Amino acid sequence: MARFFVDTLPAEGTAYTLTGENADHARVLRLRPGEAVTLCDGRGTDCPCTVAEGLTLTAGVARPCPAEAKAAVSVWMAFPKGDKAEHVIQKATELGAAELNFFPSRYCVSRPEGKALEKKLERWQKIARAAAEQSGRGVIPAIRAVGSYAVALAQALQRAVPILCYENEAQYSLRDALSELGSGPAQALTVSLMTGAEGGFSEDEIAQAQTAGMKICTLGPRILRCETAPLAALTAIMFALGEM
Amino acid sequence: MARFFVDTLPAEGTAYTLTGENADHARVLRLRPGEAVTLCDGRGTDCPCTVAEGLTLTAGVARPCPAEAKAAVSVWMAFPKGDKAEHVIQKATELGAAELNFFPSRYCVSRPEGKALEKKLERWQKIARAAAEQSGRGVIPAIRAVGSYAVALAQALQRAVPILCYENEAQYSLRDALSELGSGPAQALTVSLMTGAEGGFSEDEIAQAQTAGMKICTLGPRILRCETAPLAALTAIMFALGEM
Repeated sequence: MARFFVDTLPAEGTAYTLTGENADHARVLRLRPGEAVTLCDGRGTDCPCTVAEGLTLTAGVARPCPAEAKAAVSVWMAFPKGDKAEHVIQKATELGAAELNFFPSRYCVSRPEGKALEKKLERWQKIARAAAEQSGRGVIPAIRAVGSYAVALAQALQRAVPILCYENEAQYSLRDALSELGSGPAQALTVSLMTGAEGGFSEDEIAQAQTAGMKICTLGPRILRCETAPLAALTAIMFALGEM
Repeated sequence: MARFFVDTLPAEGTAYTLTGENADHARVLRLRPGEAVTLCDGRGTDCPCTVAEGLTLTAGVARPCPAEAKAAVSVWMAFPKGDKAEHVIQKATELGAAELNFFPSRYCVSRPEGKALEKKLERWQKIARAAAEQSGRGVIPAIRAVGSYAVALAQALQRAVPILCYENEAQYSLRDALSELGSGPAQALTVSLMTGAEGGFSEDEIAQAQTAGMKICTLGPRILRCETAPLAALTAIMFALGEM
């Protein structure tokens, strides 16, 4: 079913006319009168609608989007090279990530700044929006850049379970980290997931993270590429939390 | 550590000289005398070696590769469009898949055959080999084409837990399917994982799979792209089986 993100949802029974990019998208889809579509406010609420005519819809009763995870898993990833960030943003959005943050670390080759970074963020946010529409999400994950590794750590530590994936950790697993979760309501569950760029993290960076309170986890005995690691960890966490 | 797949492992203490593509790869890596590298037979056995000089290594004592999953998870995927099969092969190899099989289904747009398929399979097998080297695998997953959906089903049903991922299944989950696993030794665990192409499976195909004995599973409320679904399911299964 077609899905459109809009700023404000229409009241039940009122008419709503698609505009801008949503109108362009609707024309490509060739919506027909009577067809069911969904408007979503991007903050977790869906409004099922019926196509009245052309780009005009009749609104039904708004309800919570059924595809949002109860747990909020936020990703912090060191800037990767090439178009890997785009890949991670698209897939992590499908897999239910709450937000994605990118930061520079010691071994980063790519360190976008200024105008170039602004342009990237704009493009990345569009990728998240398209992936959210396509996968039926009720929330468009925010895509942000963080100025330094220290700030990224400080942000990640504000979540209930702050996880850093490290290929040289042999024992402590995602399962171990998640087992430390309290038995509070699932709505309150927040997990942060930090992964490195192509060169991984330096020993200093790992020591800094450990001292600060990050849980340093292995993702198993196989070495994952930097674009695979956050997606594999996100999937495993979603599975462990009963979200898939 | 550099890793090379070879046909036959050298006996302990003997010299081994890298040849062909392995020699090319070693030259790029600029191996230095004294450096540790690993030879692997691609059937699960590693031989740690030391660089003696140039392309010549001195063999240590062979041992089982520590990065191989105890459970064998095999993938059957309907031919996707473009280069998505390459993406799935690379990532599924990193994530520990035992083998990948591609088959035509009702809604497949891509249906490679004859010489074109042969060429694709050759390329795909090289991608699996490179990903196995990079991720530290002890086995190169075999990449195969299957002639029909019926044959793919028959093959997948030969595994202990035959799973088909379907976006219109709402209740029965991977967790449900895996809970039916016996308590036998992990070595004997075999799981098959079947996923569709861009258009998914037809209702007839799902009915056929269900009648034949496949376990039809949901991957959760978010709709995953065809190249994301097998990787997410593989990751969740590996996590559930304690392999990550």
